[in-house]
Amino acid sequence: MNIESVDFFYLSIPEVLDIGDGSQDALLVRVRAGGYEGWGECEAAPLPSIAAYVCPMSHSACKPVMASVLGQRLDDIADIARINQLVRRNSFDLLQADHTLSGIDVALWDLLGKRLGEPVYRLLGYERAYPKTAYASVLFGDTPSETGAKARAISAAGYRAAKFGWGPFGLGDVLTDEEHVRQARAGLGDDITLLIDAGTVWGDDVAAAVARLPVLAECKAGWLEEPFVSGALDAYASLAQAANGRPDFRVRLAAGEGAHDAHMARHLIDHGGISFVQIDTGRIGGITTAHEVAQYARPRGVTYVNHTFTTPLALSASLQPFAGIEGDVICEYPIDASALARNFANETLAVDAAGQVRVPDRPGIGMTPNVEAIRQYLVPVEIKARGRVIYQTPEL
Amino acid sequence: MNIESVDFFYLSIPEVLDIGDGSQDALLVRVRAGGYEGWGECEAAPLPSIAAYVCPMSHSACKPVMASVLGQRLDDIADIARINQLVRRNSFDLLQADHTLSGIDVALWDLLGKRLGEPVYRLLGYERAYPKTAYASVLFGDTPSETGAKARAISAAGYRAAKFGWGPFGLGDVLTDEEHVRQARAGLGDDITLLIDAGTVWGDDVAAAVARLPVLAECKAGWLEEPFVSGALDAYASLAQAANGRPDFRVRLAAGEGAHDAHMARHLIDHGGISFVQIDTGRIGGITTAHEVAQYARPRGVTYVNHTFTTPLALSASLQPFAGIEGDVICEYPIDASALARNFANETLAVDAAGQVRVPDRPGIGMTPNVEAIRQYLVPVEIKARGRVIYQTPEL
Repeated sequence: MNIESVDFFYLSIPEVLDIGDGSQDALLVRVRAGGYEGWGECEAAPLPSIAAYVCPMSHSACKPVMASVLGQRLDDIADIARINQLVRRNSFDLLQADHTLSGIDVALWDLLGKRLGEPVYRLLGYERAYPKTAYASVLFGDTPSETGAKARAISAAGYRAAKFGWGPFGLGDVLTDEEHVRQARAGLGDDITLLIDAGTVWGDDVAAAVARLPVLAECKAGWLEEPFVSGALDAYASLAQAANGRPDFRVRLAAGEGAHDAHMARHLIDHGGISFVQIDTGRIGGITTAHEVAQYARPRGVTYVNHTFTTPLALSASLQPFAGIEGDVICEYPIDASALARNFANETLAVDAAGQVRVPDRPGIGMTPNVEAIRQYLVPVEIKARGRVIYQTPEL
Repeated sequence: MNIESVDFFYLSIPEVLDIGDGSQDALLVRVRAGGYEGWGECEAAPLPSIAAYVCPMSHSACKPVMASVLGQRLDDIADIARINQLVRRNSFDLLQADHTLSGIDVALWDLLGKRLGEPVYRLLGYERAYPKTAYASVLFGDTPSETGAKARAISAAGYRAAKFGWGPFGLGDVLTDEEHVRQARAGLGDDITLLIDAGTVWGDDVAAAVARLPVLAECKAGWLEEPFVSGALDAYASLAQAANGRPDFRVRLAAGEGAHDAHMARHLIDHGGISFVQIDTGRIGGITTAHEVAQYARPRGVTYVNHTFTTPLALSASLQPFAGIEGDVICEYPIDASALARNFANETLAVDAAGQVRVPDRPGIGMTPNVEAIRQYLVPVEIKARGRVIYQTPEL
């Protein structure tokens, strides 16, 4: 079969707030081929990502993503790999292309899985999918006591792990940050894994991160996530040294969500001293590239974890690349998502009584958008160049 | 003064060809503040870059570039640094933002230079600007004999250095590539520096690059540029070992044009074994970030070189960051540019009889667009979301 159409749907809650909640909008991708329909999602700014699909060619290495996708043959997984290579080659000077590709790649896997009657993780070569311990992923409260209340609610809901991130953390003084971490630990109790996400707040300032290490060790944080921007490899390496190289405590580092290709994730593994590599299938280029990173991380003693702060559809897509790796035991599970994300899919991806999530055993990624529920969030888009409409939101 | 407007002009020749000529279109940026006008250029896909400026916010780290620029104070160079930091912080999940920022940053420097009556290189702290030896930058011919003819023409025109890139190089067999390189050398004669640009053609295939080393050594190529994609640090390091570590010859590596932030350029310096770092001010974030890389490269024994394959305006912008570094002696000088690029500026940036280029001593970047000449290339753009026009090409 050949790829007949690739459509983008920009969805957004009516009023997006200036907070770290990535579920306030979504870019849904629908691919059609041979009577099948595949769905994917870009974790990306919708308008630039759509523009990267439809823009006119600038030169041979700056083509629209469309040029490497539409009309392509799609019969087996080798075709998906080939399409990925085409996009990376033909659009490598188009920066946004990696984010656009991400949702398309997920949709291609979903479509092929439906056609072949197999879940994506099986197409990736995994015999079975291992359940993952869901870590409830939330923003820090505005105050330490709010953080404590969130922690108690997570504990009461039966989660076995929790991550607090963004919000005020790292923006104020060390004492306030320490209080947030202590309240989080107190609210969770001793048996629940506590993870901390600094959301790149310190840029590449190693000293700022080092100042927070003692409380992280005291409260037995499972990791410190994204103290720095993804590219700050030297800062990561220095902090890893400070956090792992002393006899009295050890704080492991996690990073990778900003990676938009496999190379960037590998750099963090090879040169950044991280212990956990966190990949968003909606940014790195989709399931294909995410799976490549999972395979790279494993023999190097680095644990692969999904990054997902959006919809259940994106969550299933992000679980596929490491579903069959038994040793990669935890997964991010957003619990504070917007109404858009909560109502996004027809199916649910629930956490069981043991605090675990299982990737669906349905064909493809096993999740479909609830078109009736999300249509109200649709942001119609039209892009014109030289007086000609080159993109218009299609029928959902 | 405060930034009153930031306008984008998408310019393109009527029919863009599927070749490696980056001068077929251009994204011109105009910034106005306090009665002054600054000009810059993004070396980027125009439509996605415009969309990255105007798109609605997705969340706190995925804001449109506009949110960090429009209305900002602009009184001295510290303001430009501050605006850069704002964009990187507020838009770090918006991949295309770095390319959009690039043209804006150049325009900010240009505007401030005009206001202060100083060339940008002086605002950067350089006492004087050293002339650079221009290397004539062209695409390989379709055949080795065409490459030879181009080389003879470059020699006759008085250039002291030349670079051949893209075209068929690396796509066919080793023997054909060898013939291209030999014809280039023969056409130039022995006294002109010969540089070779593989345009990332081998992805991360070290063996393919190694196979071309002997002819590069035989023909005394000054560098091999971009054998691999920017992120393939391991491949670069392996090739550097093969190219520098043997007694019979040495081929130095050049790369960096794909870097869209300072970190990526630093990775190539720190982990890729390159000898030349090539920065495009239109991609890396503008003059601010390019200058940061030039300062980083210098004490590490790596030579900074501009990457420019577009307009004289972009060329002047790309010369500023290393204008005052005496040891960085060569610069890229496009000579095959499109009619759009050739007619782009009111001023010229000519190569003198000694084959050298001097950065203009006029305020700002010292180049202004020839509005009358380029208006015919204007591609009107309109972007609508939720029925509202959020971008429309303004009056040029």
